[in-house]
Amino acid sequence: MRLLIINGPNLNNIGKREPNFYGNISFKEYFNKNLTSIPGFELSSIHTHKESEIVNILHESDNNYDGIILNAGAYTHTSVAIRDAITAISVPVVLVHISNVYAREIFRNKNLIAPVCKGIITGFGLQSYKIAILSFLD
Amino acid sequence: MRLLIINGPNLNNIGKREPNFYGNISFKEYFNKNLTSIPGFELSSIHTHKESEIVNILHESDNNYDGIILNAGAYTHTSVAIRDAITAISVPVVLVHISNVYAREIFRNKNLIAPVCKGIITGFGLQSYKIAILSFLD
Amino acid sequence: MRLLIINGPNLNNIGKREPNFYGNISFKEYFNKNLTSIPGFELSSIHTHKESEIVNILHESDNNYDGIILNAGAYTHTSVAIRDAITAISVPVVLVHISNVYAREIFRNKNLIAPVCKGIITGFGLQSYKIAILSFLD
Amino acid sequence: MRLLIINGPNLNNIGKREPNFYGNISFKEYFNKNLTSIPGFELSSIHTHKESEIVNILHESDNNYDGIILNAGAYTHTSVAIRDAITAISVPVVLVHISNVYAREIFRNKNLIAPVCKGIITGFGLQSYKIAILSFLD
Amino acid sequence: MRLLIINGPNLNNIGKREPNFYGNISFKEYFNKNLTSIPGFELSSIHTHKESEIVNILHESDNNYDGIILNAGAYTHTSVAIRDAITAISVPVVLVHISNVYAREIFRNKNLIAPVCKGIITGFGLQSYKIAILSFLD
Amino acid sequence: MRLLIINGPNLNNIGKREPNFYGNISFKEYFNKNLTSIPGFELSSIHTHKESEIVNILHESDNNYDGIILNAGAYTHTSVAIRDAITAISVPVVLVHISNVYAREIFRNKNLIAPVCKGIITGFGLQSYKIAILSFLD
Amino acid sequence: MRLLIINGPNLNNIGKREPNFYGNISFKEYFNKNLTSIPGFELSSIHTHKESEIVNILHESDNNYDGIILNAGAYTHTSVAIRDAITAISVPVVLVHISNVYAREIFRNKNLIAPVCKGIITGFGLQSYKIAILSFLD
Amino acid sequence: MRLLIINGPNLNNIGKREPNFYGNISFKEYFNKNLTSIPGFELSSIHTHKESEIVNILHESDNNYDGIILNAGAYTHTSVAIRDAITAISVPVVLVHISNVYAREIFRNKNLIAPVCKGIITGFGLQSYKIAILSFLD
Amino acid sequence: MRLLIINGPNLNNIGKREPNFYGNISFKEYFNKNLTSIPGFELSSIHTHKESEIVNILHESDNNYDGIILNAGAYTHTSVAIRDAITAISVPVVLVHISNVYAREIFRNKNLIAPVCKGIITGFGLQSYKIAILSFLD
Amino acid sequence: MRLLIINGPNLNNIGKREPNFYGNISFKEYFNKNLTSIPGFELSSIHTHKESEIVNILHESDNNYDGIILNAGAYTHTSVAIRDAITAISVPVVLVHISNVYAREIFRNKNLIAPVCKGIITGFGLQSYKIAILSFLD
Amino acid sequence: MRLLIINGPNLNNIGKREPNFYGNISFKEYFNKNLTSIPGFELSSIHTHKESEIVNILHESDNNYDGIILNAGAYTHTSVAIRDAITAISVPVVLVHISNVYAREIFRNKNLIAPVCKGIITGFGLQSYKIAILSFLD
Amino acid sequence: MRLLIINGPNLNNIGKREPNFYGNISFKEYFNKNLTSIPGFELSSIHTHKESEIVNILHESDNNYDGIILNAGAYTHTSVAIRDAITAISVPVVLVHISNVYAREIFRNKNLIAPVCKGIITGFGLQSYKIAILSFLD
Repeated sequence: MRLLIINGPNLNNIGKREPNFYGNISFKEYFNKNLTSIPGFELSSIHTHKESEIVNILHESDNNYDGIILNAGAYTHTSVAIRDAITAISVPVVLVHISNVYAREIFRNKNLIAPVCKGIITGFGLQSYKIAILSFLD
Repeated sequence: MRLLIINGPNLNNIGKREPNFYGNISFKEYFNKNLTSIPGFELSSIHTHKESEIVNILHESDNNYDGIILNAGAYTHTSVAIRDAITAISVPVVLVHISNVYAREIFRNKNLIAPVCKGIITGFGLQSYKIAILSFLD
Repeated sequence: MRLLIINGPNLNNIGKREPNFYGNISFKEYFNKNLTSIPGFELSSIHTHKESEIVNILHESDNNYDGIILNAGAYTHTSVAIRDAITAISVPVVLVHISNVYAREIFRNKNLIAPVCKGIITGFGLQSYKIAILSFLD
Repeated sequence: MRLLIINGPNLNNIGKREPNFYGNISFKEYFNKNLTSIPGFELSSIHTHKESEIVNILHESDNNYDGIILNAGAYTHTSVAIRDAITAISVPVVLVHISNVYAREIFRNKNLIAPVCKGIITGFGLQSYKIAILSFLD
Repeated sequence: MRLLIINGPNLNNIGKREPNFYGNISFKEYFNKNLTSIPGFELSSIHTHKESEIVNILHESDNNYDGIILNAGAYTHTSVAIRDAITAISVPVVLVHISNVYAREIFRNKNLIAPVCKGIITGFGLQSYKIAILSFLD
Repeated sequence: MRLLIINGPNLNNIGKREPNFYGNISFKEYFNKNLTSIPGFELSSIHTHKESEIVNILHESDNNYDGIILNAGAYTHTSVAIRDAITAISVPVVLVHISNVYAREIFRNKNLIAPVCKGIITGFGLQSYKIAILSFLD
Repeated sequence: MRLLIINGPNLNNIGKREPNFYGNISFKEYFNKNLTSIPGFELSSIHTHKESEIVNILHESDNNYDGIILNAGAYTHTSVAIRDAITAISVPVVLVHISNVYAREIFRNKNLIAPVCKGIITGFGLQSYKIAILSFLD
Repeated sequence: MRLLIINGPNLNNIGKREPNFYGNISFKEYFNKNLTSIPGFELSSIHTHKESEIVNILHESDNNYDGIILNAGAYTHTSVAIRDAITAISVPVVLVHISNVYAREIFRNKNLIAPVCKGIITGFGLQSYKIAILSFLD
Repeated sequence: MRLLIINGPNLNNIGKREPNFYGNISFKEYFNKNLTSIPGFELSSIHTHKESEIVNILHESDNNYDGIILNAGAYTHTSVAIRDAITAISVPVVLVHISNVYAREIFRNKNLIAPVCKGIITGFGLQSYKIAILSFLD
Repeated sequence: MRLLIINGPNLNNIGKREPNFYGNISFKEYFNKNLTSIPGFELSSIHTHKESEIVNILHESDNNYDGIILNAGAYTHTSVAIRDAITAISVPVVLVHISNVYAREIFRNKNLIAPVCKGIITGFGLQSYKIAILSFLD
Repeated sequence: MRLLIINGPNLNNIGKREPNFYGNISFKEYFNKNLTSIPGFELSSIHTHKESEIVNILHESDNNYDGIILNAGAYTHTSVAIRDAITAISVPVVLVHISNVYAREIFRNKNLIAPVCKGIITGFGLQSYKIAILSFLD
Repeated sequence: MRLLIINGPNLNNIGKREPNFYGNISFKEYFNKNLTSIPGFELSSIHTHKESEIVNILHESDNNYDGIILNAGAYTHTSVAIRDAITAISVPVVLVHISNVYAREIFRNKNLIAPVCKGIITGFGLQSYKIAILSFLD
């Protein structure tokens, strides 16, 4: 099963930034140590700060992956474009939030992308990625 | 690891009710077939329509379980009492939504309980329970 | 035709409380004098202060009654659980308000239950119950 | 007992228009077949698309009828003028909605006229008129 | 100086209706007794329940009057059409409210017409008309 | 192809009123000079200040025209009745705004009629009518 | 008849400030030339920038004047204290606005004082004071 | 003087839970040590997590107590049923909040019960109960 | 124990004004008869209509009193300055409302000062002051 | 006449995505078959998912085109940057929406770009582009 | 160049109060040590708790100063009177906030005065005054 | 001291665009003439229309600069991504607005970036940059 993890803006320096929200391990470390070893999955991972790049990756992933794990970062709360891209493709997208967005600033309660996703994993730290992968098991 | 699954109001007849949102297998069937076989967990499950009963169960579970998986059903959107009960205990609570609450009526976007939970699993159907259990692995 | 009248919180002391809104005859008196005599109906009536009990009664009524007449009292404005219970059963529910809820406090304008009912009778005093019964005639 | 039924804008072509909301019998047919035969009432019925005409009819009905059954159609949600006309007369007005306005577009939840009516009948299809007539029995 | 008084919906039965808001003298009586005698003015007065008629009268008054005194009644709070008509003509319009609209239902606080008027007289009872006339003195 | 242009309130004096929003040519002039000459269309045009008249015309046009071009003027922002009339007929309606309603008062942003129209032309001055006619070409 | 005119903050330099809203004559000039000559009134006038002073003056005027003409300036939109002072006395208060507050910034639409006044005169320039005085004639 | 103290949901473990909001003494300890010794009062105290139970207790207390001290906990912010119960009885109810609800989450600012109470004591910790008792002295 | 009672705007004529809200005894009478006799307190009392004076008194009281009892009157709902003054001093402030502000106009629900006070006493009439004093006993 | 068509995010796969909103022909096909043949225009067309790229194109088009036809897709509802770019250039921009944005999700009703455009064409499917081109004829 | 610094309510005890927001040096110290030494300026400074006093000072400063540096403290968020005073004078006013008002309570986001100022300096601590002075250099 | 000035979308053509808001000198001219000469600073400046580029520059600047001066242009009001980037780095960021954003469209009042900046300079035209640089002096 081929899965693509897309990480959006500011997710390159997890591990250094606001450790009370995001912990202190980088995504790369976690990816190599905790995710690649899960049997049954062929994992790819990509990072970009660009809203348009995420739109692009989603369009192009349509026939090449069995599932997308998307952490849209800040765009979760503002991007109609990414939402439209998800409705335009047929590969299932699972949305991931590292921190508990419900417990932070009020503007993080607004979620434009969640309504068009297959499922949402919120608040488990970097472990949220692992849970998202496991959600593709059944 | 001892986990308690608490199912709130109207969750007794999942499988019969609104299959487009909830699928057509009952929680019991799913529990027996898909959850009890997960190795490493000792699972209990309880159902109640009563808000006050959920408050009670949460208080009493505090020293008896290693984790709670809570599907508060309709009370997710209206109960300050359950929220207060969760902040009053120390056992971690994972919140579960069977359907994608973001994609339904607007009043289901308001979530009084999520801000005080360890993590939230949303929209994977009954599989959401399995994912919640797996989230206790690490 | 078997009908069940469900009266919610605080409706036990109609006739004593706030007569300008609710009149000064108790529901029991009215029931015995004005409703039981309507030909063609087998009427039952139940009162409870409990939100969860109403949910319960609705679930259990599904095969035993041809219609429900529900006065949810205060829960009309706050209960997602009762709303969910009505969508979960197939027996038709007619919602009844004794007073004109449109003409009272602003929070009584919010009606969580009405959108999932077959019809709504508002503001005719205790006579609202009689009208609700007659609505099952055709 | 003399009753006047006032039908507002767009209610002339019920039976043809949006059958999922309004059914497929015209008001005239229903009136002749189901309403005129109710014993004890002398029924009149009038239709107009004009807000000002409804205001006018209400003023003039004040001494000529024992009750008004008003389906204000779209003006239910926008007309302060009709509301003021009802407060200006003493004949009781029962408001009627064919469809369940609570379950449609959000702007149909706003009801400017209901607060000044004797009672409101909502959502029983054309049968709403019959129920409204029966409400004048006691 | 030629002035036209336009009275909108429901203002024909002032004196009978809701005396706590409108007093108990009819506009006609007041007009004949208190207004026609004011020196220096040639007064006309017209009443209509129709929003479109008020639009019409405003258009036609443009060259025939030196001033308009408008009591738009309920349309004050709902009519963009009358507002547009006032901006389309050059004769000055003084808006009149018999009752203190600030002290009544919240929807009467919304005033679509006032922003395009020369001045507004509010809450002096029928005397508001007299004050409006006097406002044309200078 | 038979088209009917319906002009609503205050649109009779375009060309004189607020030239910065509406230009300085009257609709009649524009109609005769710019619209009647478009090949392939049989054009009629009607003007009324009355909301109810527009409802009426829409009902009656249903079998007599291939398309409606509607400039509802102020009623665009306030009329549920016209909206309901459009949903009640099957002839396609194209909505026209002479001025850019998005760039004016905030209440002109609310558009009750647009959601039930085939298409909307906004802000091209009187040329908006010509564009609307051309939209029926395909 | 003894009347007291109270002018609130910033009303000392009318005539110099924002002439498009307030004209270019000072209140003093206008008072001496246009108001003192009105027969039948004994006029006093006072100016203060202080909210508390206006409260004070209102309390003390209770037995010394037959009427108050209040231009509360900016406090119109922010002062609950002045509102409370007016409800605490029995002398009638007429509220005066020089400019058309409905046609300016949105925060000037909020009027905390108007609901407790006898009447309101809005938008006639300095002439608003004269009209307010004349309103005490009857 | 007979007083009944009603403690609502989650108030059984005050003293253990969130000590910064609630202090670290349990209600029972405080009751025995600080309240029972106040001369002139016969005190009873009851705890329940159930909204419906509070409704019930209020109804039954009507003739048996001279006053009620109610800490409705989370239901303060969500329960119309308890509000209705208070308006339905004649014994005076004093509402008590241990913590300063104004200084916490925004949803704790909404108070459905306070408007129908005799008085409200907020923010003095467990001492709030003592103050509430003393309020019955006069 | 030295306490200072600060009374804000319009509280000088309690006893005469709106007796349904404030009763008919003046603060002075009540103070002399009911408060000065409470053992253990050295009471001072001050009244001012001025927001800035209250700010001043609060600053100066910081080392001279053991507690402040503040009835800020209308400023409760509008004054950020008084709120800031309370956070700037260390003497505890108890906020007092004579009437039940929750049960009056909606703008009295907004309370800018309560979040920074030690406790709040609401709705007991003049007795609120006595209760506030007693709250300093422990 | 040189026109530039700018297509924003997700508009590359029109014809495949959500055919009920967008139809099933691609923009390219439509462009080649229906637009290039319109006499009198020299058409260019460009597509990008990038907000910043649209800003850039607008700046550079200023002297090279006689008109812009912009379908900003999702950015219509969120981009202040594109709005600012349009106000910064002098070439006229016509805004195009393929679907009827008024009849979809509520967030599509907010239009940040429309207020600064020359005109807006909404809801005619791909034909909207043709209509936009024709709008440049006069 | 003559500049006047106006400090509003509660700004007299900066240095003692809430040091995390305001630091721990008093304005006087800072003024003497850091501001008076800036070459090219003749500085005055005044402090008052009174809204009306600030209005007054602004009026009187009009011909006596080349610029005003205003820290309106709490009045920033509530005073229409100060706003009106600034629009009534011609000397430029620079608004200063010591703390970052965007990052504190939500009511401090509302700024009634900023729209009529020449510029705004926010969040640099006492250094904000120095920056404001330097802003008058060019 | 090394400072980096980041200019966001549409800021490349300051000097040509909307001169009433932005003046008529380009940033480059101003930079060369007015900023580079300030002693004690080593200034760099970069312009981009891309939100993601600004995120990127902020991440990379973390160890290379002593301060950032950011004019985020339109992204000020919409970008959570830039906000998150600022919280992720440790170099202090001063936010700059050329125009007085408080005095323009209402959507420019919403500022997502300001709460996480060291300070904010608003409305001094291009001089705002100079003031921002000077703010790094102390």
